[in-house]
Amino acid sequence: MFKFDPNQSYQMPAHFGPRYIGEKSSGWYHDVTMMMVSYRTDREKLAAYLPAPFEVAEEAIITVYYACNKQVDWLAGHGYNMLGVNASVVYQGEKEQLKGSYSLVIWENLTDPILAGRELQGIPKIFADIPDHSVLNNDWQCNASHFGHKIIDLGITDLQPVSAADIAAQQEANADSDNPMGLRYMPAIGGFGPPAINQAVTFPSKSEFSEAYIGTGHIDWQQLTWEQNPTQFHIVNALKDLPVLEMLPAIVTRGKTNLILPERWSRPLA
Amino acid sequence: MFKFDPNQSYQMPAHFGPRYIGEKSSGWYHDVTMMMVSYRTDREKLAAYLPAPFEVAEEAIITVYYACNKQVDWLAGHGYNMLGVNASVVYQGEKEQLKGSYSLVIWENLTDPILAGRELQGIPKIFADIPDHSVLNNDWQCNASHFGHKIIDLGITDLQPVSAADIAAQQEANADSDNPMGLRYMPAIGGFGPPAINQAVTFPSKSEFSEAYIGTGHIDWQQLTWEQNPTQFHIVNALKDLPVLEMLPAIVTRGKTNLILPERWSRPLA
Amino acid sequence: MFKFDPNQSYQMPAHFGPRYIGEKSSGWYHDVTMMMVSYRTDREKLAAYLPAPFEVAEEAIITVYYACNKQVDWLAGHGYNMLGVNASVVYQGEKEQLKGSYSLVIWENLTDPILAGRELQGIPKIFADIPDHSVLNNDWQCNASHFGHKIIDLGITDLQPVSAADIAAQQEANADSDNPMGLRYMPAIGGFGPPAINQAVTFPSKSEFSEAYIGTGHIDWQQLTWEQNPTQFHIVNALKDLPVLEMLPAIVTRGKTNLILPERWSRPLA
Amino acid sequence: MFKFDPNQSYQMPAHFGPRYIGEKSSGWYHDVTMMMVSYRTDREKLAAYLPAPFEVAEEAIITVYYACNKQVDWLAGHGYNMLGVNASVVYQGEKEQLKGSYSLVIWENLTDPILAGRELQGIPKIFADIPDHSVLNNDWQCNASHFGHKIIDLGITDLQPVSAADIAAQQEANADSDNPMGLRYMPAIGGFGPPAINQAVTFPSKSEFSEAYIGTGHIDWQQLTWEQNPTQFHIVNALKDLPVLEMLPAIVTRGKTNLILPERWSRPLA
Repeated sequence: MFKFDPNQSYQMPAHFGPRYIGEKSSGWYHDVTMMMVSYRTDREKLAAYLPAPFEVAEEAIITVYYACNKQVDWLAGHGYNMLGVNASVVYQGEKEQLKGSYSLVIWENLTDPILAGRELQGIPKIFADIPDHSVLNNDWQCNASHFGHKIIDLGITDLQPVSAADIAAQQEANADSDNPMGLRYMPAIGGFGPPAINQAVTFPSKSEFSEAYIGTGHIDWQQLTWEQNPTQFHIVNALKDLPVLEMLPAIVTRGKTNLILPERWSRPLA
Repeated sequence: MFKFDPNQSYQMPAHFGPRYIGEKSSGWYHDVTMMMVSYRTDREKLAAYLPAPFEVAEEAIITVYYACNKQVDWLAGHGYNMLGVNASVVYQGEKEQLKGSYSLVIWENLTDPILAGRELQGIPKIFADIPDHSVLNNDWQCNASHFGHKIIDLGITDLQPVSAADIAAQQEANADSDNPMGLRYMPAIGGFGPPAINQAVTFPSKSEFSEAYIGTGHIDWQQLTWEQNPTQFHIVNALKDLPVLEMLPAIVTRGKTNLILPERWSRPLA
Repeated sequence: MFKFDPNQSYQMPAHFGPRYIGEKSSGWYHDVTMMMVSYRTDREKLAAYLPAPFEVAEEAIITVYYACNKQVDWLAGHGYNMLGVNASVVYQGEKEQLKGSYSLVIWENLTDPILAGRELQGIPKIFADIPDHSVLNNDWQCNASHFGHKIIDLGITDLQPVSAADIAAQQEANADSDNPMGLRYMPAIGGFGPPAINQAVTFPSKSEFSEAYIGTGHIDWQQLTWEQNPTQFHIVNALKDLPVLEMLPAIVTRGKTNLILPERWSRPLA
Repeated sequence: MFKFDPNQSYQMPAHFGPRYIGEKSSGWYHDVTMMMVSYRTDREKLAAYLPAPFEVAEEAIITVYYACNKQVDWLAGHGYNMLGVNASVVYQGEKEQLKGSYSLVIWENLTDPILAGRELQGIPKIFADIPDHSVLNNDWQCNASHFGHKIIDLGITDLQPVSAADIAAQQEANADSDNPMGLRYMPAIGGFGPPAINQAVTFPSKSEFSEAYIGTGHIDWQQLTWEQNPTQFHIVNALKDLPVLEMLPAIVTRGKTNLILPERWSRPLA
């Protein structure tokens, strides 16, 4: 008979034993290249996608980011690409208040981190084909598609380097207010009725940047039909409908990220 | 503020609204081609992977099956491939007893049904590259890999047609005893501690076969290291270690399957 | 020292020996599903893409076809998808005149037949991501993309079955006039200067249809930039610019095809 | 009527116009990461794969190399992976003698450079699935597969940095003797009979390394059947049969490469 070890961490299929955790499998992503495009959007329209007690922050900012992750320790040194969307929020809980970013959605091109992110951390990850970004004459481009139908084009041009001191200052300034948050939701069996899990979470991580560039961002969300993308069309259309009131400076970074911080573990918000 | 509609079905990200359910999105898989290879294995060794109150059935049978699913209504007519492993079991619950098959693992090459299967039905689906099967001179072959490393080769040769009457008789004989079951498991946030969900489930489906063939099956499980397949190596190695005591007749079928039966919904076992 | 056998057929790398040709490796494609959408276009504009002595046929017809090829003998029973474009032409050679179709381009999602088609037969095959077609409520859809950027959407709706007798009659009527032709072109080393090969070819094949349906076709060519598809943008844009003067009935077929006919071999046109 | 411009470079399909050559489309690969594993093999056995007048060099060395190519100008800033095999040779022509490397085969995971390499330069490129290399605790690994069946595993461990001065000295030492060569071969139409093209070529390129590491290499060629890899099994089996008499130091480099040198163009050997 299979028995769970209460000191281990499991994911389905659980009956073959716990997730491997060993010396080599840290939370480090040793080689991460990111593109980040931010814009101010309509406060009311953004609020329509935030479950209570999440509220839009002082400024209603959407950040669309692409990351090319390489040398990921828990994936035995393999990597994957992601394209996510964050909203600036404040969590107004009964017992705590937290400023940070709410994960509206993350597309990834590898299923393993999608399952781990959804089930262990409550991050709303779903799949898309995300080719490696292209770089041509200092113009950066990437895109995401599913079933052959484009979801988004993302580009950054006119990039200028940022000094190491500025990067460090920026990171320190954000240290306390950049809390990544989300809503962990698992339905009842069959999908209907009271959900099995419905809880706000925060999943801290830590990045160190070795290079940073600032430039001009461009985004182009597609309008999709159910026939084109039956599991995601409503997500893409909702994001397309959020108006771009003002584009903010776009950023390219190179560095490394640690997703498992022993001192600050993923946890439910109170 | 986003609010859940209690009459709808949601998956993460939930805040963009419920899963689309409409006229066109039934549970029908209209074009399903399957290869099924079964063998008798060691009773004790199989029992080591079954959580109570699942027990090995009278005969300790492993069935490895590949399915090429086309014209899937809820995927807007798209398809995907799967390669799964079932064990013959009896569920010995406090309130009910059920004979059927326990899903040890299912690899699929599309993330959308992986997420729906795990979260709505408790089926232990994970990702692999699964190319379409090949057919050459009536020899059928398929395989699955991840990160470039083979998981399994599956083949069926010497196929002979089975009469329509025999197919119908076989289906009727199995109607009451072929209950698909699994263990729906979701960890606590961060992965450690008492799980958020841990429940036995059954997820009925219904198949209609238009063609069937019987032949000789071949399987070849690989031995893998953590470096080769960091999220699945223990699963593949466990399956490789289950001894093949006797190969049973292998089967190829063509037909259609309905995964959503209004009269028999997925449900927790009691 | 490696020596060529004059009785064998080679492709690069040639020095490891000839292409395998054996009992199992016939030219049969045993399971072929096709979608064909035809339309009348502008005579002058089409003529601009035809090298002499190819001329536009009596009717200036473009046919865009998708094929899902399975059970391909020379690929050991594997398959692939293609999406090609033909023009109705007459070859007005010095020694022969031939009515048929000129291959403007074929996208395929597998490199092996691309290399064989280009080098052995002079068919202008190039690569695209071509997911399997979807079928939903009798609506058929497919598409092709490269580097994440869509090339074309192709659809057929309102399908009605065609009788077996009509299929046979149609095939017989076309038997003498449906000669597939192309221009085999290989540049000088480095690409510039007089080409190494520049010859008109015909590459006969033979199809047997078990099912056929007639319906209404839809095409949607994209406009692309060099940045989006640096090796193919000019091809896609040229095809988009060919006006659709009249849509003709669209066809879906199931059947099998033989690409290697001992009695009618691929040959240069005279 | 379509007409060729004698000052342009074309590839099939030629009738849509020449290959795009513009300001942005240089021969630069701006970001190239390479793994190189070399070993001494049996002189006689290697000679069996060299067409005259290529001869094995003083030392019979095989080099298996992987390259992760990013920021490729002619691909509008996209990239691809390759895994190639070189032999140390001397070209003993009637009019010239050249020391360098003979390209036995190159697998690439993108069709565009496969077609350009074969047709413009005579490089024997073919397709394989080549995932990005993994790096874990300074161990580098990569692999290649086709139709789900592994071709080779390549690894380098115990890496130590090489000084910039050593890199420069090494490059200067090799400047005159590292001529890349191959056999450009195109069959007659249909594949049989005297070939349309059969000529020895050299295709110079130039690399600049910013980092280099030296370590211990590992290779593991697979044995394949026609059923597993119908177009390449004989290539893989031939390479597996070349004995490894002595492993030489393995190398990892980062840098950039230019494949189009105006001062040294690809050319036929005399």
